[in-house]
Amino acid sequence: MSSRGVRHDSMRARNLAVVLATIHRSGPHTRAELAERTGLTKTTVSSLVADLIEAGVVSESGAVQKGERGRPGVAVSLSGRRVAALGLEINIDYLAACVVDLTRTVRLRRTRPADNRNSDPAAILDGLRVLAKEITAEAEAGGLRVIGAALAVPGTVEGEVLRSAPHLGWRDVRVPDLVDLPFEIDNEANLAALGELWFGSRESDFLYVSGEIGIGAGLVVDGAVFRGTYGLAGELGHVVVVPDGPACRCGGRGCLEVYAGQDTLLGALGSAGSAGSGGSADAADPAGAAGLVGSTGSVGELVARLEAGDPEAVRTCERAGHALGVALTSAVHLLDPGLIVLGGIYAPLYRWLEGPVSEGLGARLAQMRGTPPALVVSGTGPDAAVLGAAGSVIQRIIADPAQLLGL
Amino acid sequence: MSSRGVRHDSMRARNLAVVLATIHRSGPHTRAELAERTGLTKTTVSSLVADLIEAGVVSESGAVQKGERGRPGVAVSLSGRRVAALGLEINIDYLAACVVDLTRTVRLRRTRPADNRNSDPAAILDGLRVLAKEITAEAEAGGLRVIGAALAVPGTVEGEVLRSAPHLGWRDVRVPDLVDLPFEIDNEANLAALGELWFGSRESDFLYVSGEIGIGAGLVVDGAVFRGTYGLAGELGHVVVVPDGPACRCGGRGCLEVYAGQDTLLGALGSAGSAGSGGSADAADPAGAAGLVGSTGSVGELVARLEAGDPEAVRTCERAGHALGVALTSAVHLLDPGLIVLGGIYAPLYRWLEGPVSEGLGARLAQMRGTPPALVVSGTGPDAAVLGAAGSVIQRIIADPAQLLGL
Repeated sequence: MSSRGVRHDSMRARNLAVVLATIHRSGPHTRAELAERTGLTKTTVSSLVADLIEAGVVSESGAVQKGERGRPGVAVSLSGRRVAALGLEINIDYLAACVVDLTRTVRLRRTRPADNRNSDPAAILDGLRVLAKEITAEAEAGGLRVIGAALAVPGTVEGEVLRSAPHLGWRDVRVPDLVDLPFEIDNEANLAALGELWFGSRESDFLYVSGEIGIGAGLVVDGAVFRGTYGLAGELGHVVVVPDGPACRCGGRGCLEVYAGQDTLLGALGSAGSAGSGGSADAADPAGAAGLVGSTGSVGELVARLEAGDPEAVRTCERAGHALGVALTSAVHLLDPGLIVLGGIYAPLYRWLEGPVSEGLGARLAQMRGTPPALVVSGTGPDAAVLGAAGSVIQRIIADPAQLLGL
Repeated sequence: MSSRGVRHDSMRARNLAVVLATIHRSGPHTRAELAERTGLTKTTVSSLVADLIEAGVVSESGAVQKGERGRPGVAVSLSGRRVAALGLEINIDYLAACVVDLTRTVRLRRTRPADNRNSDPAAILDGLRVLAKEITAEAEAGGLRVIGAALAVPGTVEGEVLRSAPHLGWRDVRVPDLVDLPFEIDNEANLAALGELWFGSRESDFLYVSGEIGIGAGLVVDGAVFRGTYGLAGELGHVVVVPDGPACRCGGRGCLEVYAGQDTLLGALGSAGSAGSGGSADAADPAGAAGLVGSTGSVGELVARLEAGDPEAVRTCERAGHALGVALTSAVHLLDPGLIVLGGIYAPLYRWLEGPVSEGLGARLAQMRGTPPALVVSGTGPDAAVLGAAGSVIQRIIADPAQLLGL
């Protein structure tokens, strides 16, 4: 509840959002249908639609006649032709960017493989600025107006400060505006969860588990990410699995990351992890893990070994699955998710993880909850975070289109 | 965002709420101050205040002059004289009821010690119905109008069904309306967290830990309880502390409850738990655990042993504290609370728990979060849940006073 009363000048901005949300949620509508659905008069709706057309967020798309009495009306739809958003991502082994239009269609994607472990923030941020400038120019050359940007980072974020990204080796890095646009940063697991919401499973209640070099999670409840008090919620990778287990780089012991992080899983290959595996997306990746993002070669190699029945690889994956089952039991008791979505490198490894994870959840949760939350594989692949970043900018426009009109 | 546009007939209900929320948040105000703070005209404010007076939620309380130019105005304040709410609680070893007025002053409290373990739901609910009728009649004889009721239960709730309350031995119990009033039920840890919010620490962001025969938790973020997808969030008692630890009655292994539940703690006394300890509130309770609620005698006995340095009691409490430190580490990583409040029987045991819990949180969290959330003792004592139940009814009236006017 806002502390301000509803006055007539704020009603217009709010009603613009109500009309746009109606079109966004249930597709093209005539002005008459919009009036009926929103409870606003036809005159008001016509005037609001005129503003939305001017802002470039809706367009008229020909006559429709769906059960409406009288003559057909002209349908008003969300427009993907003008307004767009920029998504950016810094991950351990790549930089990524994408441009998404208002209908959440991906228009452009770029990836730069890189080794960002223990890196110099200024150099990485400069590289990302160049990538952002290039992709924005290309989008604008195509007639799009990029109206905001968001950046996904593999660490904890407070405001515009990246507090701690242990795998990058960054601590308390103030991230400058990388583009001359409204700009914000957020944790990659939160944004990947939103990517899954808008570009993947499209369920409205789930816990997205981001299996990467670090393990994060983003809880979506009724279509919104739960962030906790300081925006630090969802650090699944440091849930305690074995209280006196091996030391974790977070300073704790026996955290999930020690048993199920990418470095541990790839350790089964006798490699030191994915750093330096570099290179471009592996076109031959048998499990479909390679998409926008490159350097999943080592994960592809692990999948190949698993398919060949390599006992060391199978054992490591089972151990990771059991640990994941324990950590997710605690997460289900505390967070009560509607569904569990395994993403990141857990997507290509799903076939081998699903058994031990489901078994653990079933044995520990069945009596208290009847059926434990279902376990599914992510529908977005490795692009989830950068897509979620762009999608979150689109979401803000849809929630408040008046900002494009300077209301 | 509601799917309905803002029309003028819903504006009045919304503006009544805006004016009442302003008075509720920042105390008595003149009509002129209310106009200034809400952005509404003085004429509108005067008309809204007249409605709120008619509904019995505010009253005029004499002239004030605080920095206002011109003649003093008449202050409008929240009224505790008419509207009130009924809180009810079924716990393992007692039934409780209270009546709270709109200013959240506790007007009446009643407790009936009982042994509700493995009990017949119908018999217990009948007993509670009698208690509710008696206390409501007494409140109404005193001029109060009880406008709604809420019931706290030690188990998981979906709608009006108590899904599972293992310590009561109840499963899938449909709770009928116990009073001829708007009525609802909720988990005791959620309501205890709200009790702490409104009647205890009054912080707006914290994790309330309810140490009872079962251990629950309620997360308050920005003044509201986080409930998860099905309202089952916050089951701290079943967070896994040791994956292959002793069996828990939930069907899992090594849950927090096994190490730090009331039965385990009182086991140090060589007793079978608190069942049958019955009787009225222990006036001699040295740690202030006895308030509204009785049968904390055994906890009093444990406190006495701890004060005398009994090694078995000290060891049990240390073990519970270490387990609580592990489970709370996982909870902090997943939920990101602003503060941790130890309530229920952990309040009188705080002196002995604080060390091991803080030590565990510090060692495991310091590197990732700088300072772990502070640990404090509850300000409400054993009444938290029943007070929170009544308070939640009051909260709904303040959020929507129009319901009292039939708008």
